[in-house]
Amino acid sequence: MPAPKEFLDFVDNNAGAFIQRLSEAVSIKSVSGDATYRPEVLKMSDWISQQFKAVGVEIQQVDLGKHIMEGQELQLPKAVLGRLGNDPNKKTVLVYGHFDVQPANLSDGWNTDPFVLTVQSNGQLVGRGSSDDKGPVLGWLNTLQYHHDNKEELPVNFRCCFEGMEENGSEGLDELVERESKPGGWFDGVDCVCISDNYWLNARTPVLTYGLRGIAYYKLNITGPTRDLHSGVFGRTVHEPMTDLIKLMSTLVDVSGKILIPGVDEMVMSADVEERYLYEALDYSIDDVEASAGASIALSSDKVEVLMGRMRMPSLSLHGIEGAFYGPGGKTVIPAKVSGKFSIRLVPPQTPENILPLVKAHVESEFAKLGSKNKFELEELHGGKPWVTDINHWNFQAARAATKAVYNKDPDMTREGGSIPVTLTFAEALGVSVLLLPMGRGDDGAHSTNEKLDRSNFIEGTKLLGTYLYEVGAI
Amino acid sequence: MPAPKEFLDFVDNNAGAFIQRLSEAVSIKSVSGDATYRPEVLKMSDWISQQFKAVGVEIQQVDLGKHIMEGQELQLPKAVLGRLGNDPNKKTVLVYGHFDVQPANLSDGWNTDPFVLTVQSNGQLVGRGSSDDKGPVLGWLNTLQYHHDNKEELPVNFRCCFEGMEENGSEGLDELVERESKPGGWFDGVDCVCISDNYWLNARTPVLTYGLRGIAYYKLNITGPTRDLHSGVFGRTVHEPMTDLIKLMSTLVDVSGKILIPGVDEMVMSADVEERYLYEALDYSIDDVEASAGASIALSSDKVEVLMGRMRMPSLSLHGIEGAFYGPGGKTVIPAKVSGKFSIRLVPPQTPENILPLVKAHVESEFAKLGSKNKFELEELHGGKPWVTDINHWNFQAARAATKAVYNKDPDMTREGGSIPVTLTFAEALGVSVLLLPMGRGDDGAHSTNEKLDRSNFIEGTKLLGTYLYEVGAI
Repeated sequence: MPAPKEFLDFVDNNAGAFIQRLSEAVSIKSVSGDATYRPEVLKMSDWISQQFKAVGVEIQQVDLGKHIMEGQELQLPKAVLGRLGNDPNKKTVLVYGHFDVQPANLSDGWNTDPFVLTVQSNGQLVGRGSSDDKGPVLGWLNTLQYHHDNKEELPVNFRCCFEGMEENGSEGLDELVERESKPGGWFDGVDCVCISDNYWLNARTPVLTYGLRGIAYYKLNITGPTRDLHSGVFGRTVHEPMTDLIKLMSTLVDVSGKILIPGVDEMVMSADVEERYLYEALDYSIDDVEASAGASIALSSDKVEVLMGRMRMPSLSLHGIEGAFYGPGGKTVIPAKVSGKFSIRLVPPQTPENILPLVKAHVESEFAKLGSKNKFELEELHGGKPWVTDINHWNFQAARAATKAVYNKDPDMTREGGSIPVTLTFAEALGVSVLLLPMGRGDDGAHSTNEKLDRSNFIEGTKLLGTYLYEVGAI
Repeated sequence: MPAPKEFLDFVDNNAGAFIQRLSEAVSIKSVSGDATYRPEVLKMSDWISQQFKAVGVEIQQVDLGKHIMEGQELQLPKAVLGRLGNDPNKKTVLVYGHFDVQPANLSDGWNTDPFVLTVQSNGQLVGRGSSDDKGPVLGWLNTLQYHHDNKEELPVNFRCCFEGMEENGSEGLDELVERESKPGGWFDGVDCVCISDNYWLNARTPVLTYGLRGIAYYKLNITGPTRDLHSGVFGRTVHEPMTDLIKLMSTLVDVSGKILIPGVDEMVMSADVEERYLYEALDYSIDDVEASAGASIALSSDKVEVLMGRMRMPSLSLHGIEGAFYGPGGKTVIPAKVSGKFSIRLVPPQTPENILPLVKAHVESEFAKLGSKNKFELEELHGGKPWVTDINHWNFQAARAATKAVYNKDPDMTREGGSIPVTLTFAEALGVSVLLLPMGRGDDGAHSTNEKLDRSNFIEGTKLLGTYLYEVGAI
């Protein structure tokens, strides 16, 4: 069921007011990672609550307690839970978003004050949080306003969960989601989840996202002498930890990106013709990849291989070495204790747990081969599971139909190379389909300077979110 | 010709006064690497000049001009040139030393004020510069005092060159040495050079040093993307500079210390039985090597191999990586520009010049093999030639006889794994035999906290330097 024409017209007719409201949201400097801005984040929780109450949503602000940051005890911003409608004949949709933002200073290289939403002549709405994630949160608000102002019933039961710590580790959120997902909790009865907090691949084609990579981050620790040695006095006399470490790190991945740890790449099934077609169909080219890296360094000239490398294959990156000489110039040191850092981005069925024994067996065997007298140890720093969901679920069918209706084109079906941990939290706690339905474009510069949301993405994106609710309601 | 008994007795009888004078020298905080102490270094040049004048030496203090340090223009400490005797029937000996010291603060971990010479009950004279290099410089002064006070003629013509910038790159010295080595210069007519500015291998056996390794320091620069990338978004999509660099660095040296760059190890002739015997004879064991490294990590259980690895073989050490992640914790970065640092310690006939083409050919061929689209460049940071001299020269015979006379044992004949660049400067400018005749022990902690010189090394060391002059005089 497409959205009624009245809804679409309402959005167009109220575009100015919606942008004005986004401007108000951007002016609240809700930087969660900087203690001095914490009162603004708390204020933002209240502002969001009031806005959603004003369109008829029942709101509960949940105290998440305190935490320690920069040596201070700080109040966590309250999470905002909302509820509208309880019709057992309707589907219940939970939407997630966040109202905190990344830090931003004019001196970082912004062309305009980051906390003053600036409407450019090219239609870009420039300001911190415009795209990540105040714009999408207000997209839901705009939709609800149509129904409130026109006394139109929503096609679904609406639930929302907005947090103010997403840019700083989502402290307290996992516990909240698990608690409220239990029988009698705020999320009890939810049929599907929709998260609008990622981006299109490019600046042209809308996207539905159905997968995220996980991660396992490791440290290879090698210790030898009790203190750093002089390379003149000790060179070719003792086993040097750096020599061992570099050898070990060189056995992890090859230049083409293939992971050399036996069993890791092999866990992943190859893509069949149908799945390869998904990548072939994506509106994203080798040129796009290289433009965004800034150099002609793509691993392959085959677009499908490159996109699968990012989205459906594990990857291993060598990040650096702790304990070695890292400054400019030349220091003739034999470092005594060095730690090589690397991480593996995981895809199903890989998990940090089932990967660890493979990594451990490999590095231990390679170290033993070296015959070094230094000491070696593998340390796991942190990990997170990957996520992939069924793109044929009605939740995705609804979003696909909504995209087609609003943008008149089929969305690209994407998997992200990075992680959005809250996705997995909802998927595991609720056991329902989770959909990532982004509003912004790939060039929005979410964590960068001059973050923007295109006016058309805000307005058509609002229509998309609203239409999605109608499509879910029609299932 | 052994030294006269009167000289040896004079040294013993004046030990207290000599230590008092060393104490005065240590109290002048002549730290050349710290601009705030520069007036003390200038003062030290004057003090040394006065001391040597007082024992009859003709002195010239040479203005070396100014230099820029820590953003300030500073006066360089004047070098002190001395001359005593001009008998064409005698050999002319040039001695070198330095009167500046390394930085030292009580808070670094010193047990006593570093600039107050503290006489410990175990006979150690603790203070900054006691061993490096004020003690040895005063050893020469003590010797000359005997001749001055007793109106005894010196067995040789004496020349000295003391500088105040040794711990900070010996700025201005090379030009001075080259200038004064020309006909009519201060060093014209010098027959041999003696430098007392290194250490015994251990705390037991005196040493003559006849070789030093050179160095060639390199940077392997790999650049790919125009900025650091997120490993989630770009992992397995682009060529990662760190992957390439680690592969390249892993081809340089093996875990046993063998240099894998074709032609580098091969330039060095193997030791014959006679030369191996020199190492076998050294009073230094695998246990000593491992005690000084703090761990059982010697490359071999064969003492000769380990000592030759340090003294007469080239070595290659991997120092670290500039541009990669080096902090604690886990950062999921793909560094955009990384520079691997390594250096090769050189032995004859290797030079920075003849090694460079081998290194360049190897790394370029290895990089080409990788097939990476990143950019690669080899950069040479700095270099210095190795030095080895003839241990059968009369200069060494004299020092050997003097050691036998004073310590009643044959000295260990050593080569140092590191560099003392002034050695090469004198050897090349004068074309005469240069001898390194250390006064202090291997555990003096020259550049460390609680630097010390044993009382016996100061007193017997003074006898050694004096006796050496008699032995040279007797040639």
